[in-house]
Amino acid sequence: MIMSRIEARRDEDTVAAGPLVDRLLGGLPAEAVLTDPDVTASYAHDMASFCPAGSPAVVVLPRTVEQVQHVMRTATELRVPVVPQGARTGLSGAANATDGCVVLSLTKMDRILEIDPVNRIAVVEPGVINAALSRAVAEHGLAYPPDPSSWEMCTIGGNIGTASGGLCCVKYGVTAEYVLGLDVVLADGRLLTTGRRTVKGVAGYDLTRLFVGSEGSLGIVVRAVLALRPKPPEQLVLAAEFASGAAASDAVCRIMAGGHVPSLLELMDRTTVKAVNDMARMGLPESTEALLLAAFDTTDPAADLAALGALCEEAGATQVVPAEDAAESEMLLQARRMSLVALEAVKGTTMIDDVCVPRSRLGELIEGVERISEKHGLTIGVVAHAGDGNTHPTVCFDASDPDESRRARESFDEIMALGLELGGTITGEHGVGVLKKEWLAREAGPVSMEMQRAVKRAFDPLDILNPGKLF
Amino acid sequence: MIMSRIEARRDEDTVAAGPLVDRLLGGLPAEAVLTDPDVTASYAHDMASFCPAGSPAVVVLPRTVEQVQHVMRTATELRVPVVPQGARTGLSGAANATDGCVVLSLTKMDRILEIDPVNRIAVVEPGVINAALSRAVAEHGLAYPPDPSSWEMCTIGGNIGTASGGLCCVKYGVTAEYVLGLDVVLADGRLLTTGRRTVKGVAGYDLTRLFVGSEGSLGIVVRAVLALRPKPPEQLVLAAEFASGAAASDAVCRIMAGGHVPSLLELMDRTTVKAVNDMARMGLPESTEALLLAAFDTTDPAADLAALGALCEEAGATQVVPAEDAAESEMLLQARRMSLVALEAVKGTTMIDDVCVPRSRLGELIEGVERISEKHGLTIGVVAHAGDGNTHPTVCFDASDPDESRRARESFDEIMALGLELGGTITGEHGVGVLKKEWLAREAGPVSMEMQRAVKRAFDPLDILNPGKLF
Repeated sequence: MIMSRIEARRDEDTVAAGPLVDRLLGGLPAEAVLTDPDVTASYAHDMASFCPAGSPAVVVLPRTVEQVQHVMRTATELRVPVVPQGARTGLSGAANATDGCVVLSLTKMDRILEIDPVNRIAVVEPGVINAALSRAVAEHGLAYPPDPSSWEMCTIGGNIGTASGGLCCVKYGVTAEYVLGLDVVLADGRLLTTGRRTVKGVAGYDLTRLFVGSEGSLGIVVRAVLALRPKPPEQLVLAAEFASGAAASDAVCRIMAGGHVPSLLELMDRTTVKAVNDMARMGLPESTEALLLAAFDTTDPAADLAALGALCEEAGATQVVPAEDAAESEMLLQARRMSLVALEAVKGTTMIDDVCVPRSRLGELIEGVERISEKHGLTIGVVAHAGDGNTHPTVCFDASDPDESRRARESFDEIMALGLELGGTITGEHGVGVLKKEWLAREAGPVSMEMQRAVKRAFDPLDILNPGKLF
Repeated sequence: MIMSRIEARRDEDTVAAGPLVDRLLGGLPAEAVLTDPDVTASYAHDMASFCPAGSPAVVVLPRTVEQVQHVMRTATELRVPVVPQGARTGLSGAANATDGCVVLSLTKMDRILEIDPVNRIAVVEPGVINAALSRAVAEHGLAYPPDPSSWEMCTIGGNIGTASGGLCCVKYGVTAEYVLGLDVVLADGRLLTTGRRTVKGVAGYDLTRLFVGSEGSLGIVVRAVLALRPKPPEQLVLAAEFASGAAASDAVCRIMAGGHVPSLLELMDRTTVKAVNDMARMGLPESTEALLLAAFDTTDPAADLAALGALCEEAGATQVVPAEDAAESEMLLQARRMSLVALEAVKGTTMIDDVCVPRSRLGELIEGVERISEKHGLTIGVVAHAGDGNTHPTVCFDASDPDESRRARESFDEIMALGLELGGTITGEHGVGVLKKEWLAREAGPVSMEMQRAVKRAFDPLDILNPGKLF
């Protein structure tokens, strides 16, 4: 429907690049308006596979709130779709351009406006890199916990748009819990301020949380008040090897039922362990069918790790290796960090799923993925934020082979179906974008979809904000 | 406008109690439909002062989701306003009846449906008492942290409706952070399921969070999936006396800037200390102008309290008294627990404000309240969740004295104005209801109010869900 509307507009010639660019230049400096097709094409898509991307009419790089307001007013006037973008590290196509759209890149709005240690907040522009914020607040003894794998590249605006997770979530939660207030430019260019600068606040509807994870479809976040935490002590890591994914999953259940709060609890299945072993000669024994990595950042992490290690042994761990210090911890985490690169090396291309199940169903998910992998004759490795039940089954395939690509997409969908069957969700932290639109409808059901569309209409009646994403 | 609509309906005689009650009885057992005016009048209001309350046409006490759906279908058909209620312990009039409304009491839907220690979730009906849930999950070694002062009486549904806080928030956050998913009966009787049973999940808009704090104005929560935490160790408490509110506030800033994470950090100003002393002969020295209570539930709370005590002394504490054990801790907390009763004894009636400011502005808030108190010749005690900057300035007055009542209301409003001036919010945890409607508009501003109303229309186009609350 959206495509046909765009085509209809084209027939009427209302969005020919000329008038659009002229109007944009009325409120933006020339260097902030990119029209060279070779350049604009480089803003066409994020890092998701299998997601269609159109050609932007123009890319704008505003530096101020007023400039963003000008862009949105122009877009509303001319009924041109606007696709907001951060660093385009997303994995669901939520930042992919649509034909004839304005790509609104927030990357130049990258100032940290305030760091306040007494109130434990930071005020930032959306283009601030996650790692830059982490380093800046660390100088004040503070931490901004959400740590997606792309943290050295991704922006806070993108993190807010996709409600990002990361490795820390098992102890510290997700992005939604760290966003206290927002300045948002609405579809028609008006500026909305939501939320608060205080720790608590319940004045009116929680519009702040509504924007978190809305993938740029309700408004453009131009400023965020973020909650910070005291920087925790350095974490100490333990690796535990298991003879089956089921045993490792059992260990996860014992750890969580036992009341432990690790700062990290990651799982790699046998396919992933093998891929990492092949790539880096980590020297993991061939008998290792699953590897669990756990960490504590408590005052006595060695004691906590000892208790956790004992639970791993009860669950049948073949070997438990606690790190002695930060350097050893870092070495153990290397295996986890290399996982996706190692899996990518298997066939050249990967498609990373993001199914989150109740953690008690983790073992069933891993077994189910094995069955799907065998059925399609494909390599699928499972890397998981095990403590959260958030798995990333990663389908390895040769993108130049159409049949293998088709099977990859099919297995990807079957994994989501399995996730729903196990009481889970199709996306724990990567979002819906264009990749999982049909699956959102399947998970949420017709009443929810109707209410979500009603919310969308309330904020964006002309459907110009990232149209065609989510639904 | 709402009142005139109700009157218009009456003129047409479409909501005469007869037909409404008949229709309700078509889907509810007789004992679940109360029409005796003496009985229905007892459901007219919550615990807020200065809030108008109307006379309900009927009170219904459904026990099933289907019965709630029947009530809402009936209400939609007859265009009758519905006021959802829990235990009516709210402090903003959000549960107050409007003339001719259906009061929908969820108190009979009070089953704990599931407690799952591996996944750390509970599934509950809305009428479950907060303390009942806390005790039930404690048997599994788990905790449901949100602990409003009314926790022995208030319901989880009410907690969700008002986004309740409590004493634990400084370490464990507020209700919004513990609601993972909801079943909600919409205005027209359809059943909406939001959110998830998993730790993480970002499929679509965060409708769950939108319902939290919406004061029953968007739908009727009939089931909730709640996140639990491992039960923490027993907390150990410290009391510190200060010669001024400013010094106590300075201690709060030093504690938070120092990276401490107490499980409780409460402040009582001199008025409150005096009221408690008068009532209970606590033996606090007359020179005590402010009392700070702090606690840790860490593995070594005594060590943590010692560090915190040192910071209190740096800030000028005249005395620092750490508890030796749980019994002493409980004694120290008694003073805090008695605060509101003691302040009520001053003049017979109190009006409890709920202004939350950045914690760095706490001292200014306390001083400002003193000025307002002197100006109006009223006793106003400040009790505060100091670690959150969430203050409860409590205006003591004689409700039978019209002039004093007027001054009480004026001072109440001036305290909110002061809170906004200091960068705070008019409500940290009690909500807007009818008490703070004008103030919500003042805090949020016209763009936000317009978007909030648009959200309201999307969910409740006929304006039958708790009309006249929030805006």
